Amino acid sequence: MLEELRAVVGDENVSDDAADRYVYGSDASMHQSSPSVVVRPVSAGEVQKILRFANGRKIPVVPRGAGTGESGSAVPIDGGIVLDLKRMDRILEVRPEDMFCRVEPGVVNDELNRQLKPYGFFFPPTPASGKVCTIGGMIANNASGMRAMKYGATRDAVLGLKVVLANGDLVTMGSATIIQASGYQLERLMVGSEGTLGVIVEATLRVRPLPEERTVGRAVFYELTQAGDAISKIVATGIVPSALELMDEVAIKSVNKALGAGLPEVEALILFECDGVKASFHHEIKKIKRILEECGAFDIVISDDPQEMEKLWEVRSSVFPATSMYKENRIRATLAEDVTAPVSRLRELVEGIHQIARDNDLLIGTYGHAGEGLIHTAFLVDPRLPDEWDRTRKAVDEVFALVRHLGGTTSGEHGIGISKAPYFKKERQDLLELMRGVKKVFDPNNILNPHKLMDAPEDFFTATKLRYPIKERR
Amino acid sequence: MLEELRAVVGDENVSDDAADRYVYGSDASMHQSSPSVVVRPVSAGEVQKILRFANGRKIPVVPRGAGTGESGSAVPIDGGIVLDLKRMDRILEVRPEDMFCRVEPGVVNDELNRQLKPYGFFFPPTPASGKVCTIGGMIANNASGMRAMKYGATRDAVLGLKVVLANGDLVTMGSATIIQASGYQLERLMVGSEGTLGVIVEATLRVRPLPEERTVGRAVFYELTQAGDAISKIVATGIVPSALELMDEVAIKSVNKALGAGLPEVEALILFECDGVKASFHHEIKKIKRILEECGAFDIVISDDPQEMEKLWEVRSSVFPATSMYKENRIRATLAEDVTAPVSRLRELVEGIHQIARDNDLLIGTYGHAGEGLIHTAFLVDPRLPDEWDRTRKAVDEVFALVRHLGGTTSGEHGIGISKAPYFKKERQDLLELMRGVKKVFDPNNILNPHKLMDAPEDFFTATKLRYPIKERR
Repeated sequence: MLEELRAVVGDENVSDDAADRYVYGSDASMHQSSPSVVVRPVSAGEVQKILRFANGRKIPVVPRGAGTGESGSAVPIDGGIVLDLKRMDRILEVRPEDMFCRVEPGVVNDELNRQLKPYGFFFPPTPASGKVCTIGGMIANNASGMRAMKYGATRDAVLGLKVVLANGDLVTMGSATIIQASGYQLERLMVGSEGTLGVIVEATLRVRPLPEERTVGRAVFYELTQAGDAISKIVATGIVPSALELMDEVAIKSVNKALGAGLPEVEALILFECDGVKASFHHEIKKIKRILEECGAFDIVISDDPQEMEKLWEVRSSVFPATSMYKENRIRATLAEDVTAPVSRLRELVEGIHQIARDNDLLIGTYGHAGEGLIHTAFLVDPRLPDEWDRTRKAVDEVFALVRHLGGTTSGEHGIGISKAPYFKKERQDLLELMRGVKKVFDPNNILNPHKLMDAPEDFFTATKLRYPIKERR
Repeated sequence: MLEELRAVVGDENVSDDAADRYVYGSDASMHQSSPSVVVRPVSAGEVQKILRFANGRKIPVVPRGAGTGESGSAVPIDGGIVLDLKRMDRILEVRPEDMFCRVEPGVVNDELNRQLKPYGFFFPPTPASGKVCTIGGMIANNASGMRAMKYGATRDAVLGLKVVLANGDLVTMGSATIIQASGYQLERLMVGSEGTLGVIVEATLRVRPLPEERTVGRAVFYELTQAGDAISKIVATGIVPSALELMDEVAIKSVNKALGAGLPEVEALILFECDGVKASFHHEIKKIKRILEECGAFDIVISDDPQEMEKLWEVRSSVFPATSMYKENRIRATLAEDVTAPVSRLRELVEGIHQIARDNDLLIGTYGHAGEGLIHTAFLVDPRLPDEWDRTRKAVDEVFALVRHLGGTTSGEHGIGISKAPYFKKERQDLLELMRGVKKVFDPNNILNPHKLMDAPEDFFTATKLRYPIKERR
C-alpha cells in the first residue's frame, strides 16, 4: 500500500510513523482511532488516483481538513487512509464582478477573508476556529458561526463543487452562477455530508460585500431568564444583528479567570454586533438597547472603536479555551456541544441544561449563538471522580431529549460524526434508510469515512478509544 | 381506479372529464399530455393514501401547484394521476420570534407575503408569477425572481420539509431552526427536484424582516453594450441592490405597445431597486447613478414615491404578456427561457442571443434578472412560416451552446422539465448516473413525475404534443 501511495504523492507526503498516525487519529472530539497511513495529495488528480486505488481494495478513506471538528467526523474509526487536504490550499479565482470565489478545500477560512478584503468582499460563515479551519471541512460539516443569523450558513454560500467520487471519478456539481435550477442540487447535498459521499477538491463560493461599518455592544443580567427574554424580543422585532451571543456564569467566570476580564459575575451576558452602514443600523442599536434595558440589563457598553470592539469580542472568542481553566482538574469534554432550538425556546434550553447539570451533580457551562438558537455546552468533567463519566453520559442523553422536546436539532454547526450519532439517529429515524440509500449510490463499497452519521456505532462512548483518562469504563 | 381515489378524497375532488384532463395536461410550457385523472387531496394523509395506491399499481403521479412552470415540469408525460395540491393552502404558523413560517404546499406566494406583512416579515423569493404560483411549486423548481441577488433563492429559505415518499411514508427533513448540521440536508436535495423524489406536503421557511424603505430607478441606453457594462460595474463595486433588471429593445417596444408606456425605444433599459433604510442605501443609489451615467445612460428616473415606483415596476412585470403583442401572428414559445451566466458574461450572453436571432432570421427578445446573470428569452414565433420551427430549434441549440461556453447553466429559476432536458443532460452529464441512483432510492417504481430531468426524452420537440399550431412537423 505505502509503495503505491508514494508513487502518487511522493515519499514525503505519505507517512505511517507512529506519531503521525496518533495525531491524525483524533480531531477536537473525545475520540481516538489511528489510521494505517496519512496521505497528503496536492491536486484533484492525485485524489482521484488515491481513491481509485482505495476503492479497488476497499480501504477506508477519511478526508480531513484542519481536524478542528468536535464530533469525531475526521476520526478514522476503521483505520485505513487519512487524506489530509491542507496542501490543496490555493485560492484559484476571486471574481467580485460575479460575486464568487473559487478555492481548493485546504484554504483556511481567515486566509480566504484576508485575500477577499482588498476586493471589498468577504465569505460570511465565521466558525470560532476560523484561524485554522479549512473551507473543505466547513462545507463537509455545514459550519455556521455567529454571523449565520444574518448571512446564512455554509450551505447557503456553496454555488458549485468539484468532487472526487469513491470510484475516482471527478464530477462538477452546481455552477458558477449565483442562482441555478438545473436539476438535483447535489452540491447542497454534499454540504454536511462529512466526507461520506465524496472528496471535495474545489468550491465556488458566494461572497458578500464587506460591511462598511459595525458597532458592538455588551450587556449583563442578574438572571439568565432576563437575557433569554431579551434575545427573543430582539429577534421578534425584526432586527437581524450580524451577531447575538450569550454567555452564562460559567463562561463569564472562565474568561475572568483566563483573561482577567473583570466582568461582573452574574448569570448572563449578551454580546451583539450590527453591521452595514451606521446611518442605517444606529436605529437598530437603539432598539436593541431599549429592549435590553426593559429586560433588566445593566452595565451596557456600546462601541464602534476598533480596539474596544476587539476587546469586547475577545471575551467571547476566548470562552472555549478559557472553560478548561475554570476549575482545577476539570477537562472539557466535547459532548452535545452545538445543540440548537428555535430561538424562542432558547431560554428553556439553557435553563433545562442547567437543571440537568444540577440533577446529575455536574458542571456544565453554556454559551453560544443565541440569535440562531445555538447553545455550546461546556461539560467540565473531573475524570478522577467515581461515576463522573456515567453521570456525564446520562446528562448528555437528557440534553438531547430536551432538545428534541423543544423542537430543536442534534447539531447546529459542528456535524454528527461519532459523538452525536445515537441522537441524530433518533432525530432522523424516518430518514436513515434514505440516507443509507444515497450513501450507497455515491459510495457502493463504503470506503468514504465509513461508520459515521447513520452508520456510526450505537454507543459513542465505546465507539473508539477516548483521548481522556477514563476511570473504570464498563 | 376512480372508485379508489374517490374513496380517499371524495367524489368532487376526482375528475376524469375531458376538459379537466386537457387543462391539467399542460402548464405554461409548450407541452401537452393529458393525465387519466386529476385528484385534489386536502391533507398529507390523503396524499399518503393516493401514493400508496399508485405505488402498488405503478401508476405515474405528477404533483402540481398552479401550473405556471414554463418547462413542462408539471405535464404528465406518461399520463396517470395529476395531484393538484392547491387545496392544501393553509398557513400553519407564523413565528417571527423564530424567523420562520410553516405552510402547506398550495399556499400562493403573494398570499403568504400578505399574511407575513402584519408581522413585519416577508418571504424573499419573488417569481413573476407570484400572484398565483404556489410555495410547493417554487420549492420543486427552486424559484428565484429578481430579489434573489440580495436575499437568495428558494433553496436558501427552506429550513424543513414534510414529504410523502413514493411508498406513502411521511417523513420530516430539516428542522425548525435557522441553522442545522444534522446529517445529509435532504430538504435541500428536494429543492429543485421537480416532483420526482417525493410530494412536499409542508414547508418550514426562513422569513426576513420587511425592509422599511425602498427606492426604484430606471435608466435607458442607446447601446446594449453600455447597459451590460453598467451592470458588471455595479456588481463589482460591491453594491447588492434588491433588484437589477435589464430589458432589450423588443421588450421595451412590447410594453410600449401593450401599456402605451412611452419609453424611448433604444437598445436597453435598466431597472433597479435598493431597499432597507434610506439613510443607508442612498449612498448606493448615488453610486449606481454615477456608474449608469459613466456608461452612457440617459433619461435616469429615481423615485421613492409609492405610485411612481409601482409605475416603474409595471413596465418590467408586463414584459411576459406584452411580448405576445409585439407583432401580429407571433406567439411566444417558452424555450431556453431562463438561461443564466456569471454576471460578468451577461453582455456576451445577450449580444450572442441577438446574433443567434439574426443568424436564424428569428425574433428573440431578451430581458431578465441581470444582477443574477439570468436572461429570459422571448422567442416570438410565427407558426405559419415555413421552417420557422426548424430555425427555432436550431437557435435554441445555439443559445444553450453559448450558455455553456460562457460558464453558465441551463436553468436559473424555472427548472428543467421536458423543454430543457437535452441541454441539462449535456451540462450535467457526469452527474446523471448519480441523479438516477438518487431517484431510484426515493422512488424505486419510478412513479413520481417519471420521464423528466435526467430521464426525459432526447428531443423535447417530439416528447409530447405541443400546445401551438405547428406546420408540418417531421
